Amino acid sequence: MKGTVGELGEFGLIRELTSRLTTTSAVRLGPGDDAAVVAAPDRRVVASTDVLLEGRHFRRDWSTAYDVGRKAAAQNLADIAAMGAVPTALLLGLVVPADLPVTWPAEMMDGIRDECQVAGAAVVGGDVVRGDAITIAITALGDLRNHEPVTRSGARPGDVVAVTGWLGWSAAGHAVLSRGFRSPRAFVEAHRRPEPPYHAGPAAAGLGATAMTDVSDGLVADLGHIADASQVRIDLRSGDIDIPTQMSDIGQAVGVDPIQWVLSGGEDHAIVATFPSDVKLPARWKVIGEVLNPSALPQVTVDGAPWVHAGWDHFGDDQGAE
Amino acid sequence: MKGTVGELGEFGLIRELTSRLTTTSAVRLGPGDDAAVVAAPDRRVVASTDVLLEGRHFRRDWSTAYDVGRKAAAQNLADIAAMGAVPTALLLGLVVPADLPVTWPAEMMDGIRDECQVAGAAVVGGDVVRGDAITIAITALGDLRNHEPVTRSGARPGDVVAVTGWLGWSAAGHAVLSRGFRSPRAFVEAHRRPEPPYHAGPAAAGLGATAMTDVSDGLVADLGHIADASQVRIDLRSGDIDIPTQMSDIGQAVGVDPIQWVLSGGEDHAIVATFPSDVKLPARWKVIGEVLNPSALPQVTVDGAPWVHAGWDHFGDDQGAE
Repeated sequence: MKGTVGELGEFGLIRELTSRLTTTSAVRLGPGDDAAVVAAPDRRVVASTDVLLEGRHFRRDWSTAYDVGRKAAAQNLADIAAMGAVPTALLLGLVVPADLPVTWPAEMMDGIRDECQVAGAAVVGGDVVRGDAITIAITALGDLRNHEPVTRSGARPGDVVAVTGWLGWSAAGHAVLSRGFRSPRAFVEAHRRPEPPYHAGPAAAGLGATAMTDVSDGLVADLGHIADASQVRIDLRSGDIDIPTQMSDIGQAVGVDPIQWVLSGGEDHAIVATFPSDVKLPARWKVIGEVLNPSALPQVTVDGAPWVHAGWDHFGDDQGAE
Repeated sequence: MKGTVGELGEFGLIRELTSRLTTTSAVRLGPGDDAAVVAAPDRRVVASTDVLLEGRHFRRDWSTAYDVGRKAAAQNLADIAAMGAVPTALLLGLVVPADLPVTWPAEMMDGIRDECQVAGAAVVGGDVVRGDAITIAITALGDLRNHEPVTRSGARPGDVVAVTGWLGWSAAGHAVLSRGFRSPRAFVEAHRRPEPPYHAGPAAAGLGATAMTDVSDGLVADLGHIADASQVRIDLRSGDIDIPTQMSDIGQAVGVDPIQWVLSGGEDHAIVATFPSDVKLPARWKVIGEVLNPSALPQVTVDGAPWVHAGWDHFGDDQGAE
């Protein structure tokens, strides 16, 4: 596989990319026709779209094409899981510069494929276009398996707030990378390739979660969306949020309180949900706060007090590649 | 509504765009959560993704934002119809420069919404990101209503080839615009805003269509995809393909044989299908050829002979904004 995508041409590139894909039993018709056909046994389909841009959401010198693919897929598949659904399929809209080596989109596609496999989904279609900036537009689909979708608007005062997955690891990895270091490896890896707990979304729906989201903008910011949609206040107990020793060490080395990463760092795609207080949660869920009536305080508080840093606005100017 | 998208910010822009949307009974959960939920009564969902780039697929000096939205939606919704499915929903991934006036994406969204309404669908979700080039990534979903999907691979020797919708109008309009003219208006309009016959896709499935596609790259090129997937030859009878008088006049004025536009012009999103020869087609379908056994000739012939111009390769260099 040599040369650039411009040399290979549109149809050649599509062949190269689709040749790398695997399928599942949910795929009734895969790539190559006007549209794909995917099983939707629940009679409803869950769908979400995200766009990633080179320079804004990833950097080719920080992440391999494979990792960019894993991350792009993970980000979207996590949105499906966060509704309580099981991911089934993914579609890819891809803009690539003509002078890009074919290896780049090919390896990115390997990453998308592998992340889909982790989540139980498959790539079923897409489009490639030549343009100046690498742009990855992904749409993920999922099936609710007879659960009602768990939205952001169902949290009720008295519910507990619980989280599963990783928190702050990507942000700590970003801090390491942005200072020119390549280790500790576990955090750099977490920044390059998040591991959303896909299974936890449908499991939470089954456990009676009242509201749910994945942590893409930061725990406080994303819980703010739940508090806003549910018209409640959410209070987190910082003492109940674990900070790994190694993350504290990085914090000390770079002069950042690691609680910042845990509360404000996005991109790990942990899943956070509210549950009735009598819920029996599996061991990998951690109760970290509670849902209260709205008050004069901000919608999300930490230990009863306002919290300052509240995630990214993706149109902001101050963030570099986050 | 004043200012630029950069001034409005990500969340402000999302609010502005979603405030313009309408819904349908198929939308179980619209924009604003981690993902949307759309009815899929058939237990299968049809899905297709396309990407449009400014400069490549549209020009702001040739088309209004509203028309770009109509066209972007039409292109994707036609893919759903061409499978024999009824469009239900659309998701939008949008890249916009920070200095773009908010009116542009807002009016584009109006166009997407209105085209969705024509097709019976609704916008259910999306993502907006700031970047250098306007990029529109659309995913459309649809429901098969208990028909089997009509793919490109079912054409059989002896079938007839029939088409419904417009052929060559967009290409003729493009020829007019690229020579600096703004009329005849009907063709310029057809270039700016195609009118795919959405209803015809599911209707063809009901009539027993054996293969189907929409004409996005040109009639000969798109029938080539059917011939290729079905391993047949398709022969068109040029005498059975109507060329409107006004299109002939434009051809004479700009020195192009209008059959070129009709056979090679894309973007009108006519629907072309193959049917068993005993099919009774409604009046708006026109039989224009037949399916034959493969031979040494090209897979698509016109009046039994090879045809030269075979549509666009979107990675080619010679096309400008098509």
